[in-house]
Amino acid sequence: MANPYAAAATFRASLRRFLRRSEDVSRSAGITPNQYVLLLQIAGADDGTRTVTQLVEQLQLTQSAVTELVQRAEQAGLLDRTPSQTDGRVYHLSLTEHGRKRLDAVHSALGPERAELRRLIDALDG
Amino acid sequence: MANPYAAAATFRASLRRFLRRSEDVSRSAGITPNQYVLLLQIAGADDGTRTVTQLVEQLQLTQSAVTELVQRAEQAGLLDRTPSQTDGRVYHLSLTEHGRKRLDAVHSALGPERAELRRLIDALDG
Repeated sequence: MANPYAAAATFRASLRRFLRRSEDVSRSAGITPNQYVLLLQIAGADDGTRTVTQLVEQLQLTQSAVTELVQRAEQAGLLDRTPSQTDGRVYHLSLTEHGRKRLDAVHSALGPERAELRRLIDALDG
Repeated sequence: MANPYAAAATFRASLRRFLRRSEDVSRSAGITPNQYVLLLQIAGADDGTRTVTQLVEQLQLTQSAVTELVQRAEQAGLLDRTPSQTDGRVYHLSLTEHGRKRLDAVHSALGPERAELRRLIDALDG
């Protein structure tokens, strides 16, 4: 009988390697791993902007953690904050040109890693 | 033209939700998220045992972090250490009955989450 844990164990080991590689590539590009995922979520939006509330769900971080992450990314020149025209408490976040370049650098470098991880996940049967 | 970041953004958000859920389920079962992945890697081995050296690669942690993780898991009654018959410095790690039960509880509870993650990843096109 096949080992019922083998597929999940392979998946987790692959996931850990992917996340480690993602960390290394982000730091080589001069941003933190969380900044990469933040920039990716904003750039991945249909209209290229996100609010802190949307990012809380996507990043699975607390409101205060996202707020701090956004502040540091803004200080690093990676993104702009534009107040909402309908609600002054809400800011729409979008990437600066510098942020877009950092995102592109990491995103391109991770292309083969994403493909490999997805291939492994597809191959799971348990 | 399709947003070139949308698929990767969805993929990352799905991974984060999966890892968060995995954390919650592990803690509900009375073990840490790292203990779950440790038990899974040992149980997923063909012969049901692993060494610290193997786990360093699978968990992507340092030798000292794995050593500490193993010590705490042993103290919690989750695994046994058996000295290698060929090299006294090496220990083979295997699950206790208690460890197997904790692993089963988390692994079963995460079944639908693994399936959902695969479904989401299958649906990605980029």
